[in-house]
Amino acid sequence: MSDLIVWTYDWVPEGPRGHVRDMRLRWACEEAGLAYTVRTVPFKDRGPEHFVHQPFGQVPFLSDGKLKLFESGACLLHLARKSEKLMPRDPAGEAQTLQWLIAALNSIEMVSVPWWFLEVTGAEQNHLTGWLESRLGHVERVLAEKEWLAADRFTAADLLMADVLRIAKIRSFGERPATEAYVKRITDRPAFRKAHADQMAHFANAD
Amino acid sequence: MSDLIVWTYDWVPEGPRGHVRDMRLRWACEEAGLAYTVRTVPFKDRGPEHFVHQPFGQVPFLSDGKLKLFESGACLLHLARKSEKLMPRDPAGEAQTLQWLIAALNSIEMVSVPWWFLEVTGAEQNHLTGWLESRLGHVERVLAEKEWLAADRFTAADLLMADVLRIAKIRSFGERPATEAYVKRITDRPAFRKAHADQMAHFANAD
Repeated sequence: MSDLIVWTYDWVPEGPRGHVRDMRLRWACEEAGLAYTVRTVPFKDRGPEHFVHQPFGQVPFLSDGKLKLFESGACLLHLARKSEKLMPRDPAGEAQTLQWLIAALNSIEMVSVPWWFLEVTGAEQNHLTGWLESRLGHVERVLAEKEWLAADRFTAADLLMADVLRIAKIRSFGERPATEAYVKRITDRPAFRKAHADQMAHFANAD
Repeated sequence: MSDLIVWTYDWVPEGPRGHVRDMRLRWACEEAGLAYTVRTVPFKDRGPEHFVHQPFGQVPFLSDGKLKLFESGACLLHLARKSEKLMPRDPAGEAQTLQWLIAALNSIEMVSVPWWFLEVTGAEQNHLTGWLESRLGHVERVLAEKEWLAADRFTAADLLMADVLRIAKIRSFGERPATEAYVKRITDRPAFRKAHADQMAHFANAD
């Protein structure tokens, strides 16, 4: 049995299926060939036990033997150090992977998730749209010039940026051909498709 | 001369002084006793050269010999690996530091910075207030139970969380005594006070 345990919810409504953040850890393990098992906590009635492992009452969290971590970005960096497939071992490749992984979390998702939150909670005017368009414009410019964000090859930075961008539903922001092609290329990878199918099946089986 | 160069703006208006994100790197270097120099890029007229180093046109970025990194969170993790004062070397201490450092970026700042953006851009009703209050409530509960976020001692996670919380001006969110005491305690550290004074002087000298 594997020492790596990815924790997610036992069930979620249809809307978030395929987007729950355990995707990032399933996908990373599939890319790296790391054995893992999936275990669950209740989606409804999140109890004190859940908050001990994840103080914001969210998922995923990761067990690695005796180690426990929360925050998908932190778990992803932890997994990336286990496999050169996710992060190069040379200092320059590692630095590039690290900076783009954090950029996905703190320069894109910091705008795209609150933007999405305002969309679904029905603000009459979404005051974050201009800011998000500006950030996506910068990403488009970068992706028009290179195939991968770091080290001239697939890394955990691409995994996270593509996941953030697909959740942001970038298609609603007009013509960004390099970004569209990038997200399509990264999410066509067998490891993404397996992780996605596994998550969909996991929640469907709980209905 | 030091190999570490913290890049920031040559000047900013009075409002952001003391809050520009190069603070995080100055402060980390002061805590760790790492020698560093500060160099600048223009705040006005950000040219192509700036975007080569920071694709979102922001600061800070860090040079470490031949290595270059952007994103304050990535630079901070890079510095943390250089000094046990910023991050313990044992796997559990490192994992705790990593998860709380990412939580500051992706669970708190992902809400607090867009919340602040809506405050200053004059949305009639700030639809992120409830979400931010919820997140700050979770942090308050954690800080009521422990003095430090990770490893029972000061780490880079406290540095970043305290910086995120002080920028979020948590005082406007009512009674959160543990959080208030935490931010006061962390920002009373000599390394914070030196970094803050240095940044204020840096921008004042440019007027």
